[in-house]
Amino acid sequence: MRMVDIIEKKKLGQTLDKEELRFFVDGYTAGTIPDYQASALLMAIRLMGMDSAETAALTMAMAQSGEQSDLSAIPGIKVDKHSTGGVGDKTTLVVGPMAAACGVPVAKMSGRGLGHTGGTLDKLESIPGFQISLPKERFFDIVNTVGFSLIGQTGNLAPADKKLYALRDVTATVDSLPLIASSIMSKKLASGADAIVLDVKAGSGAFMKTVEDAYRLAEEMVAIGRHAGRNTVALVTNMDQPLGRAVGNSLEVIEAIDTLKGEGPSDSTDLCIELAANMLFLAGKGSMDSCRTQAAASLGNGSALQKFREMIAAQGGDPAVIDDYGVFPQASVVQPVYARDRGYVSRMETQLCGTAAMVLGAGRATKEETIDHSAGILLAVKTGDYVEQGQLLATLYTNKQAALSEAEDLLQKSIVLSRIKPQVQPLVYGRVEAE
Amino acid sequence: MRMVDIIEKKKLGQTLDKEELRFFVDGYTAGTIPDYQASALLMAIRLMGMDSAETAALTMAMAQSGEQSDLSAIPGIKVDKHSTGGVGDKTTLVVGPMAAACGVPVAKMSGRGLGHTGGTLDKLESIPGFQISLPKERFFDIVNTVGFSLIGQTGNLAPADKKLYALRDVTATVDSLPLIASSIMSKKLASGADAIVLDVKAGSGAFMKTVEDAYRLAEEMVAIGRHAGRNTVALVTNMDQPLGRAVGNSLEVIEAIDTLKGEGPSDSTDLCIELAANMLFLAGKGSMDSCRTQAAASLGNGSALQKFREMIAAQGGDPAVIDDYGVFPQASVVQPVYARDRGYVSRMETQLCGTAAMVLGAGRATKEETIDHSAGILLAVKTGDYVEQGQLLATLYTNKQAALSEAEDLLQKSIVLSRIKPQVQPLVYGRVEAE
Repeated sequence: MRMVDIIEKKKLGQTLDKEELRFFVDGYTAGTIPDYQASALLMAIRLMGMDSAETAALTMAMAQSGEQSDLSAIPGIKVDKHSTGGVGDKTTLVVGPMAAACGVPVAKMSGRGLGHTGGTLDKLESIPGFQISLPKERFFDIVNTVGFSLIGQTGNLAPADKKLYALRDVTATVDSLPLIASSIMSKKLASGADAIVLDVKAGSGAFMKTVEDAYRLAEEMVAIGRHAGRNTVALVTNMDQPLGRAVGNSLEVIEAIDTLKGEGPSDSTDLCIELAANMLFLAGKGSMDSCRTQAAASLGNGSALQKFREMIAAQGGDPAVIDDYGVFPQASVVQPVYARDRGYVSRMETQLCGTAAMVLGAGRATKEETIDHSAGILLAVKTGDYVEQGQLLATLYTNKQAALSEAEDLLQKSIVLSRIKPQVQPLVYGRVEAE
Repeated sequence: MRMVDIIEKKKLGQTLDKEELRFFVDGYTAGTIPDYQASALLMAIRLMGMDSAETAALTMAMAQSGEQSDLSAIPGIKVDKHSTGGVGDKTTLVVGPMAAACGVPVAKMSGRGLGHTGGTLDKLESIPGFQISLPKERFFDIVNTVGFSLIGQTGNLAPADKKLYALRDVTATVDSLPLIASSIMSKKLASGADAIVLDVKAGSGAFMKTVEDAYRLAEEMVAIGRHAGRNTVALVTNMDQPLGRAVGNSLEVIEAIDTLKGEGPSDSTDLCIELAANMLFLAGKGSMDSCRTQAAASLGNGSALQKFREMIAAQGGDPAVIDDYGVFPQASVVQPVYARDRGYVSRMETQLCGTAAMVLGAGRATKEETIDHSAGILLAVKTGDYVEQGQLLATLYTNKQAALSEAEDLLQKSIVLSRIKPQVQPLVYGRVEAE
């Protein structure tokens, strides 16, 4: 088999078979296929496309390009939840405990945030003492006793994806649906969960700007799951404004705790119930209606909150944060932002809001930067609210006085006021499951 | 300017401007743009295309990527002739002396052959003593005194093309019209001629298999010439059978001499007159009709033959070859090939015929191989001829007894017999000139 013949086939719009895709992925990972042939194939895939069987075969080859997590030490159906990334998305911190409270074990490996969206690891590290690096045995032990554990990604999972993603970034081949889908799903498959709930975000704060694109990605990923024999469901959800009101690490953990107490913002709460219900459904916990009821009950009866408390303690964190938010690191500068005009919040440039939080210290522009866990934004308004001139829009938290004016500027730009009341957009656009 | 943005533009089907194409070509030649970005762009160009202004800008940047020949030491309008490559194509050896005899200086730099088509340098080197490496001053001197000189390509002409061609070869991006056209024309522009006559071959022995594709390539190259301010004409010509009857180095030189004596095969003679006439036309020697008359006369009156004799002598070759073909190296094995069936020669698989000659020693499969100047094939039949079973089809010349059976097999396959007399195809399909 020769790589140039594989490129030729895709260039002519033909279908690559499993063996050809495996030859490419294995050879590229091993370094026997050079970058310049890989990038020519990636561009041919970007322009000529791949069908769902091809995409699944590519994904499987990528998932098998390195280590694969073996979760068999954990009894039961392990369900993973993955979000394509949004601003203010703290759902993992809520749905993990919810699923655990309902008897579904969640053994989650997560990554760090980059750019305008935060990472779950960074959020958890805002809890004093919390450890995200644990030996595998301890990780399994926590999942088996508490029901939920979350650690940093360990081992050499899907190295083909790492290498291909870096190449795509410099060859203008990021925006290919089969390549995006295979990148996400290869890591999920290698992580070893039996079933996967995907939260595909659509809107101004998401990678997919339109609902149509988000649906296409959702369908592509669910098809991969089906081909790979992993029960997969995707929700296409609204990222046209930040989820909830908190953006930034400790602020988001606080909002997650509020949500677990049944006191969270309604949008974030509703989405967590929907995601957790789908996790329960895939774990065989009954009909979707019954799963929704169970998920909501775990918030109402305090069982999910209790799971979070246990998980924090098990991973070395101070569970006092749950009752006393003063235990979190505190920002030295707290600055209100007021409306310069009046009108309805007609839409939010969500990515700008995420960037504002990053500027305040809540995120990283490059991998090397450190994070200020206390920094971030608490929004006082949501899309559809009417505000008077001078009314509070948001509160900024930071330890960088110098960053305030840029962050306020970004935030003002991100909140678009209009005389006309905007139409209410649904929180969940739809659900995609395997046929 | 960033290379990834240039790739992105082309991926989206947008037009690249001069500065962007120059940035790419200069950066790639200098090694600051890596192969993997170049190959992604090449694939995007292959799949999204380039318009004629873009192709011209790419070609200019490639032509200017290294040294550029300065032919100003030669008075008059210098006209180059270039063939896209065919089997048995010895026209350069004939039209060079013809143009010189008619007062048009021809300062030609040529390459070696590879694969199933021969190179003019290899053909000339079959003349005992002939030197293809001359100092530039001597080269100019011969052109100025004799009117025609042909040497090996010297200097660092169009290094971007060399580097890009090697990359295209391993990334399945050879078959792109703008890339083919820019590759050919960048070398022609860098070679410094004022005007260019292109012989674009179409058929079973050519790179372009169909007349339509050959026309497209011809139009693309003529457009580049126009953009570059070089008067350019292209003939689209028939390569559905070898040109003339001789394939192989000394055999082709002998046929060229026969043609200069007015005793060559009619197809090869006619094409030489047409090509030479176009060269005269671009040099301002009158109307096309008048130029055809002048070109034909140079064969009839012996003036072109005299120019060839002088040129051979000037470059150290033995001009006795012109009167005594026994001066050429002689093959030790001469083997007739007879028809196994009867019928009309309905078509020729010309590439197989070229490969047969290569197997006999007339060409190289890889750059490292040496050439047997005496090896080759003399065809006894042309398409449309009727042959009886047992009639002579061709004579094979070689010094490799062991190669005979493979070569005969290829040759038998290349000559397709049929009961039906084939339609006669034109020798010249058409002519493309700048609008």
